[in-house]
Amino acid sequence: MNTLFLDALACRNDSRAPVWLMRQAGRYLPEYRKIREKYTFTEMYRHPEIASEVTLQPIQIFGMDAAILFSDILVIPEALGLGLHFKDGVGPIIERPLLTDVDIDSLPKPELAESLSYVTQAIDHLSPQLDVPLIGFCGAPFTVASYMIEGGSSRELKKTKQWMLRNPKSFHRLLKHITTCTIEYLNLQIEAGVSALQIFDSWANALGYAQFRECSLNYLSEIRKGLKNQNIPVILFCRGSSVFLESLAEIMPDGISLDWNINLKKARSVIPETIALQGNLDPDILYAPLHVIRQEVTDLLAAMKNDRGYIFNLGHGIKPDMAVDAVRTLVDSVKNFSR
Amino acid sequence: MNTLFLDALACRNDSRAPVWLMRQAGRYLPEYRKIREKYTFTEMYRHPEIASEVTLQPIQIFGMDAAILFSDILVIPEALGLGLHFKDGVGPIIERPLLTDVDIDSLPKPELAESLSYVTQAIDHLSPQLDVPLIGFCGAPFTVASYMIEGGSSRELKKTKQWMLRNPKSFHRLLKHITTCTIEYLNLQIEAGVSALQIFDSWANALGYAQFRECSLNYLSEIRKGLKNQNIPVILFCRGSSVFLESLAEIMPDGISLDWNINLKKARSVIPETIALQGNLDPDILYAPLHVIRQEVTDLLAAMKNDRGYIFNLGHGIKPDMAVDAVRTLVDSVKNFSR
Repeated sequence: MNTLFLDALACRNDSRAPVWLMRQAGRYLPEYRKIREKYTFTEMYRHPEIASEVTLQPIQIFGMDAAILFSDILVIPEALGLGLHFKDGVGPIIERPLLTDVDIDSLPKPELAESLSYVTQAIDHLSPQLDVPLIGFCGAPFTVASYMIEGGSSRELKKTKQWMLRNPKSFHRLLKHITTCTIEYLNLQIEAGVSALQIFDSWANALGYAQFRECSLNYLSEIRKGLKNQNIPVILFCRGSSVFLESLAEIMPDGISLDWNINLKKARSVIPETIALQGNLDPDILYAPLHVIRQEVTDLLAAMKNDRGYIFNLGHGIKPDMAVDAVRTLVDSVKNFSR
Repeated sequence: MNTLFLDALACRNDSRAPVWLMRQAGRYLPEYRKIREKYTFTEMYRHPEIASEVTLQPIQIFGMDAAILFSDILVIPEALGLGLHFKDGVGPIIERPLLTDVDIDSLPKPELAESLSYVTQAIDHLSPQLDVPLIGFCGAPFTVASYMIEGGSSRELKKTKQWMLRNPKSFHRLLKHITTCTIEYLNLQIEAGVSALQIFDSWANALGYAQFRECSLNYLSEIRKGLKNQNIPVILFCRGSSVFLESLAEIMPDGISLDWNINLKKARSVIPETIALQGNLDPDILYAPLHVIRQEVTDLLAAMKNDRGYIFNLGHGIKPDMAVDAVRTLVDSVKNFSR
């Protein structure tokens, strides 16, 4: 078993920095697209064999040091009965978005062990095939709530923020309900055998400082405390982590995954060495010529050279039109860098 | 003459905090929409009388402590011959976006005193009617370049970043060319009589830390140095200023205008008291009930109570569907707060 990732997450890695990439299993891979031709996105993550195969692809092709389960942060709203499908070129569509307080108060308390059994089955199926740790994940309550209200991706989260500001009580009831489900969901993933968890707050940067603490951080903290096995390391990712990193550190996650705005060394200067830092290459660097990718990777690694808690990653996910060669160059550059 | 704004910009304001709001002259005002019915957006900023009238509206209606010239950051690409119009519900459209290096190298050196004479005429026309300082403005070279390449607003600036990463030399030639034009343009505004300048880098948050320093900060610094009258105070605004504020402070602007992610007091703790801070209420707070607006304004003012260099503003512009009453409540709350 390759333990680089877990060692770094425990801040005691003296070997090279581990590397994995957000959205490493995805459309940029021809092997992925070949499967995607035959199945919808939803079918892919709902079938344990297919989800396993797709999760394994980047590990087999590039040799990342961790795998992340092929799934989606919106399986919770789906389990809550809101309806979910993915539209090519658009993204996720929530079919029956929340419109009123009544919609929030009539959300069911779903039997997740049943409705999300395909996730635990995928983990069961995957685990024996892996020689790297498997990362389970979920969306942060604020981000998941925004999809449930907007009905899909949205640039400014106008409806969500209006709800938050005009009717904070029901908004918090929604966040609380998602939090409860999320804790149950992550506990199912832990029981099924994931080695680490990452929570994605992709839209946190829409929030002001105090709003972030009230509507995101509080619930991240509840989730953290609600995990049955406190030994499973938890990484927090936000778009906005460059600004919110000290707040994130307060709830003592095992790792913080940074977006690409901040200088990584500067981030380390305010985050204790007991918390791993993950990131934070601008994903668009993968559009650059290969020699630029090599240089940028090397610069980041050199800056974090003696850091025992550093995990190489992008500041956000790989995009569908990025080149396989670019990803290969990135991974190889991390692995070939000698401390 | 009301000097609160300039006093605060000089960090020696002992009276109440001054207030003005980004996009304070705009579509949320019925008085603005009435004029807009008769003219296109372009006609409005190109006609000195109309531009003056619209600039004055929020001062007359709410009594802000500074006026900002009604214009657009894209008058430079327009003067460079790229064609510009504004599409309702979409935003600015650059008609002939840059496609190749040749397009950059064939950009003209326009006679801005001539092609942008409508701006200086508007300033001439406005000045005698104002009893508050007039703020001139421009876009930052990176943001202006992004519109010239994307052809309009764009969520991820994909083409711009690909150009920056794949062909940095021509990208820097473009930034340099915009910088030269911008310096000339701001000098014209200074000669015409503006009392302060604000530079808008609305898309800076698409950049990584080193990219921001290389592709934005360098050119902001050149602009600052290129102004003929160094006594005219300059404010720098970025989406991303929450992360980039210490970099911005290095080039010694008179003021930094912050987006709403950061805690303002924390920002002050890393920015010397010789640089004014402007901001940073989440603009969406204007969607909240009036008592929430009052509370949020009061909280910000209380936090900056003894700060001699604080200017109240939003973290970004007012949106077209915001309520007049909300804006009035905000302005009144600032004015009624006693230190």
